[in-house]
Amino acid sequence: MASNEFDLIAQYFERQAVNRSDVPLAIGDDCALLEVPVGSQLAVSTDSLVAGTHFLADADPVRVAHKALASNLSDLAAMGATPAWVSLALTMPEPDEPWLAKFCEGFFALAEYYNVQLVGGDTTKGPLSITLTVHGFVPQGQALTRYGASSGDWIYVTGNLGDSAAGLAVLLGQAELEDKQLAETLVERHFMAQPRVLTGQALRKVASAALDISDGLVSDLGHILKRSGLAAVIEVDKLPLSPELKAFEPLQDKALQLALTSGEEYELCFTVPEQNRGAVETALAHTGVSATCVGQLRPGSGITLLRDGNPLDWQLQGYDHFAE
Amino acid sequence: MASNEFDLIAQYFERQAVNRSDVPLAIGDDCALLEVPVGSQLAVSTDSLVAGTHFLADADPVRVAHKALASNLSDLAAMGATPAWVSLALTMPEPDEPWLAKFCEGFFALAEYYNVQLVGGDTTKGPLSITLTVHGFVPQGQALTRYGASSGDWIYVTGNLGDSAAGLAVLLGQAELEDKQLAETLVERHFMAQPRVLTGQALRKVASAALDISDGLVSDLGHILKRSGLAAVIEVDKLPLSPELKAFEPLQDKALQLALTSGEEYELCFTVPEQNRGAVETALAHTGVSATCVGQLRPGSGITLLRDGNPLDWQLQGYDHFAE
Repeated sequence: MASNEFDLIAQYFERQAVNRSDVPLAIGDDCALLEVPVGSQLAVSTDSLVAGTHFLADADPVRVAHKALASNLSDLAAMGATPAWVSLALTMPEPDEPWLAKFCEGFFALAEYYNVQLVGGDTTKGPLSITLTVHGFVPQGQALTRYGASSGDWIYVTGNLGDSAAGLAVLLGQAELEDKQLAETLVERHFMAQPRVLTGQALRKVASAALDISDGLVSDLGHILKRSGLAAVIEVDKLPLSPELKAFEPLQDKALQLALTSGEEYELCFTVPEQNRGAVETALAHTGVSATCVGQLRPGSGITLLRDGNPLDWQLQGYDHFAE
Repeated sequence: MASNEFDLIAQYFERQAVNRSDVPLAIGDDCALLEVPVGSQLAVSTDSLVAGTHFLADADPVRVAHKALASNLSDLAAMGATPAWVSLALTMPEPDEPWLAKFCEGFFALAEYYNVQLVGGDTTKGPLSITLTVHGFVPQGQALTRYGASSGDWIYVTGNLGDSAAGLAVLLGQAELEDKQLAETLVERHFMAQPRVLTGQALRKVASAALDISDGLVSDLGHILKRSGLAAVIEVDKLPLSPELKAFEPLQDKALQLALTSGEEYELCFTVPEQNRGAVETALAHTGVSATCVGQLRPGSGITLLRDGNPLDWQLQGYDHFAE
């Protein structure tokens, strides 16, 4: 067994298929040297996944790696950025080669799919956790931010909502499902979300604001409202639910509440001015991802939930790591 | 007490004095948006500090923050890069405001000194650890790497070596010092090393290779030798020792061995071709940092330690987190 951290790094992290021309110097020096295309801004995001907080210590390393990288790429997607590079800080109690091999399998599979090169990082001893910093490019002035929305803009979400929370409930033993195939599908959705990278890029000139749903729709939409000084109306009947979620939670209210609060969906929530509504479908046609209009921005503050035009008084909370 | 991670972030990390013009969008969106100067390469480095591995959980947060940022800036220094931005991933068991306040004090003091802007990060619940990713600029083709050295080049180190290990020994109770002032000075050196940022920049056109001493001179110099396919001779009598180290460890052999193996020094080790030797002093004059020639590169492999021209058979080991 490799007992030296440098050997570990060399052995597992220097073997990658991606070799970008904008990386003159990658792993193995004090810094990576990188080249940003002229006319592009650099988009950078950092996320940590901690064992016991974001995943169970005995979770499949392939899935953990996918989730870690997918959640970071999702932040690039939400800016409309094209992924390029990633740094990995991996802390583990001991050099566990079988774990590392599987982690690399999940990590590099997703990295290669998006042509993302691992350019550096750190391997340290301690409680299991993963911190990634992803870098991408966005043409000057075209980034999707949280503050560009206006009253009257329509609120869209990609894909379906709620599956991740349902999968987590199965994983934590909070829900017993007789249909084992359904249970496994939902757990898979929880871990193996696909970042909406192409969708984000396609929305650059269509959406007025965007973010990814990592803490739950109502919680995340709140960031756009706060940044833009606006209120929102969500028509809950329009929320896109998967057949699996409906089978998991046949009580419609609970399925909709899951859709409103489920974190780690890594779908995009974005706003579209009236004049761009017709462009949404065209823009997304080549991405294979659906988008559903679920509401509208209004003057004021806060989120109103409507069903058949009538307000609902559901008490919902977004996910908060430090909440009691 | 703020119990919500977003409040915590807003409260402590959005209050910084540095506000760079190359940061169109910093904390508060899915990504930061950043602009690299045309003609510059981006230098990026990631380092983690884990409680129990790199610092004691009850260590002064001001010092922990300084050490975390200084060690990262030291990687930029070793490339000859000018620091610009940093991302911070902070994992802590609970939102500890007094700890955060002190951490920010140490962090922003050093960040402001080098005009480094905190542009993003993540705050998560879990065992205490800090992962930083620093970004800097270096003019195209002028970065100092580990692989540019040639046989005959002279080996230099900045400052003094060994103080950090001596300070750590005091901190861990492995050394009892009657002189409390001396003990405190050494502990301070362990935590409050100054990254050699200006020195690294000044060496861009002088040094053939460079790195920072984070694992001990013999261990780190080994990286240059490996990358360059060379051997080295170190004349141990030339190693620069502080008066404090000599007072701490009056046995000369032990002081020299500390100087050869002390990690987390964050001094630079660099190599200089014969024709550039005269330029070293001039280049460093404005930086206030001394440099000492301690040896020379030779054909072959490995490191030979000489005293008065005679080989020493000291068995030394660099610091390795996973070593038994």
